[in-house]
Amino acid sequence: MPVRVEVVAVGTELLLGDVVDTNSAWLGQHLALSGLDACYQTRVGDNVERIVAALRIALERSDAVIVCGGLGPTPDDVTREALAQLLGVELVRDDEVLARIRGMFEQRDRPMAASNERQADVPAGAGVIDQRRGTAPGLICPLPASDRVVYAVPGVPHEMTEMVTRAVIPDLQTRMGGRAAIVSRALHTWGMAESALAERLGPRLEALEATGNPTIAFLASGMAGVKVRITAKAPTVEEAVAVLDTEEVSVRALLGRNVFARDGATMEAVVGGLLQARELDLAVAESMTGGLVASRCTDVPGSSDWLRGGIVSYASEVKFDLLSVPEGPVVSKVAARAMAEGVCRVLGADVGLSVTGVAGPGTQDDMPVGTVFVGLHLAGSTSVSHLHLAGDRTLIRQTAAVSALDALRLRLLGPEEPSTG
Amino acid sequence: MPVRVEVVAVGTELLLGDVVDTNSAWLGQHLALSGLDACYQTRVGDNVERIVAALRIALERSDAVIVCGGLGPTPDDVTREALAQLLGVELVRDDEVLARIRGMFEQRDRPMAASNERQADVPAGAGVIDQRRGTAPGLICPLPASDRVVYAVPGVPHEMTEMVTRAVIPDLQTRMGGRAAIVSRALHTWGMAESALAERLGPRLEALEATGNPTIAFLASGMAGVKVRITAKAPTVEEAVAVLDTEEVSVRALLGRNVFARDGATMEAVVGGLLQARELDLAVAESMTGGLVASRCTDVPGSSDWLRGGIVSYASEVKFDLLSVPEGPVVSKVAARAMAEGVCRVLGADVGLSVTGVAGPGTQDDMPVGTVFVGLHLAGSTSVSHLHLAGDRTLIRQTAAVSALDALRLRLLGPEEPSTG
Repeated sequence: MPVRVEVVAVGTELLLGDVVDTNSAWLGQHLALSGLDACYQTRVGDNVERIVAALRIALERSDAVIVCGGLGPTPDDVTREALAQLLGVELVRDDEVLARIRGMFEQRDRPMAASNERQADVPAGAGVIDQRRGTAPGLICPLPASDRVVYAVPGVPHEMTEMVTRAVIPDLQTRMGGRAAIVSRALHTWGMAESALAERLGPRLEALEATGNPTIAFLASGMAGVKVRITAKAPTVEEAVAVLDTEEVSVRALLGRNVFARDGATMEAVVGGLLQARELDLAVAESMTGGLVASRCTDVPGSSDWLRGGIVSYASEVKFDLLSVPEGPVVSKVAARAMAEGVCRVLGADVGLSVTGVAGPGTQDDMPVGTVFVGLHLAGSTSVSHLHLAGDRTLIRQTAAVSALDALRLRLLGPEEPSTG
Repeated sequence: MPVRVEVVAVGTELLLGDVVDTNSAWLGQHLALSGLDACYQTRVGDNVERIVAALRIALERSDAVIVCGGLGPTPDDVTREALAQLLGVELVRDDEVLARIRGMFEQRDRPMAASNERQADVPAGAGVIDQRRGTAPGLICPLPASDRVVYAVPGVPHEMTEMVTRAVIPDLQTRMGGRAAIVSRALHTWGMAESALAERLGPRLEALEATGNPTIAFLASGMAGVKVRITAKAPTVEEAVAVLDTEEVSVRALLGRNVFARDGATMEAVVGGLLQARELDLAVAESMTGGLVASRCTDVPGSSDWLRGGIVSYASEVKFDLLSVPEGPVVSKVAARAMAEGVCRVLGADVGLSVTGVAGPGTQDDMPVGTVFVGLHLAGSTSVSHLHLAGDRTLIRQTAAVSALDALRLRLLGPEEPSTG
């Protein structure tokens, strides 16, 4: 029986709907991936008595609780007080934590408000989870005379995800001890809808139905593509991984180059790796994506090894004057070609990638919203692809950026070898 | 005392994080706007016993419960069964509802599956809320010998919002008689930590403590800054808005230009508005932010009116050759100044904004990670600011991009008038 973990999200802003509770969704996903069961999730406002009541109910029906939020420095942050009351202990100021918070403010050259001292308060007997991104440390509170435990983590998403991945899930996995190992792996695909993937994998899915191990699930993941998640159970992690390895070969044989990465690697990191292996550097010319392709690339650590830079040619005159695009419609094959060649020349790069199109809300050059041209200049030859994307302005721009990188990935992989399967 | 309403969202996909629970956020917002208090929200999987348990807990601490989801035709839709069990009654097939569902399928010229008949099952004694958009009707279930009530509504967002607006909220308002309206407003701030804001607003927070109306709360919101949320209660919405208006003036007097927007406007939209009002256009030169500033700007609809374009000068040679940055360290005041001036010249813009710095993981030009220089060229004069940012690579880049836009905002606002407060 898997460990049952309940998420309690704290914050009046969640109840008022000012903030959509994406933390609980993220936690649900990552707990499930780690083989932990989630039967309930609760949201409660910034109120000590109500938080304590919610925690009591959660601990009656679950083995572990992750309380998320209410660790900030302001008076409405009362999760620490609620935990002390739940455990029936006092809050004790932890000198080591306090010193670390002070150090953080000094490093940033900013004065520390008196209220930040509260963030060093720890319920007596609780453990502290190091904070790596903000000021509030996390807490591990084992319940007296019981094997249940409450973890407190910050509500700021990037602080929460880092702390849960690094400390909370490993701690939970240790506590669940000698149960079956459940291991997952995600293959990221680009260019196929969920339903098309399911159809392509049809025979494999049917074969697995009989055994129920491993299982395959699909998860539409926005700009990370559609994930094909394979989950295997076995007595040990090593055996589960061996099951995954075998299944991955079968899935890749069916999906081919639509699989671009595994377990969270981004499209831009994959493209960067291919460029580096071929000792090529890249220049990007962007119109409708307005810097999204370049900013994705520069988010990859070490991208200075393969990215030369980019030009955001938003106004048409910038296209004509700087990139030598011929006067005329700028949402066109001709413009995409000239932009890819022009940016290579102006920035002195080996590879030029360009994006021009219509993100909306209005049309442009008589082209409908969602029209995108991607230009690619490499080894003396330029190709242009023509895409039709759906969605609102933000979605079209984001999808265009990733699709442009995917076009570059496929070109760098070279012609596909005939399948041996 | 306002009516306390609790939302119970049903669906295993919510617990697994495959779907983000936006329904609860919408309900929270609309209940608050109608003067109804929400103290808790719960999510539970598609399981009769657990739904009943969640409803029992909710009814102990709230006056009314809205259960959302689990009314579909498939076997995992078990909210009807859970309600019958909670009320201790049988499910009865309602002929009138059945006829209406049949009619809907006929109208759409689609065959009706046998499973759809289940959607006409109603717990004995419950009322039916007409379905206008899908097939599942809503339910009103008064608890025997009590004034508590459970409403069941579909989980499909557009069906839910229509039914709640038309039937559930009016029914709740009738039950609560002439109680209060609750209205909120958020002021977005940049450049001050949550604790520093609380300290600056100290006297105001103390004064409000006595009356409890309006209330002020802080919400760290990543790249949307720290929000200061003011919430007011009054007999009518108009009166509550008047209380907000007065309080907003007091808060703005204390926070000054740290407030950059209200109710969800982004920094880039604010900057775009200021540029457009002054008939100026902008060019951006980015190194460590690698296109983030430009892509934020181009995400604003209509940004072609004020954004000329940008240059991502990631490789140092691009800075030297294209932007005429003098050879030497590129993480420097000198480089930021030359980049801002250079991009203005190369792209023919009125205003030049530049960002150079160290995002990490490694240091550069002997500068520590988090060092950022922002250059600003406008009306013949160039200024440079020097920032120290904390966090990982992604956070430092994002913060640098918004801080650069904030520097431009402050410059466009011109010299601050002496405070009269």
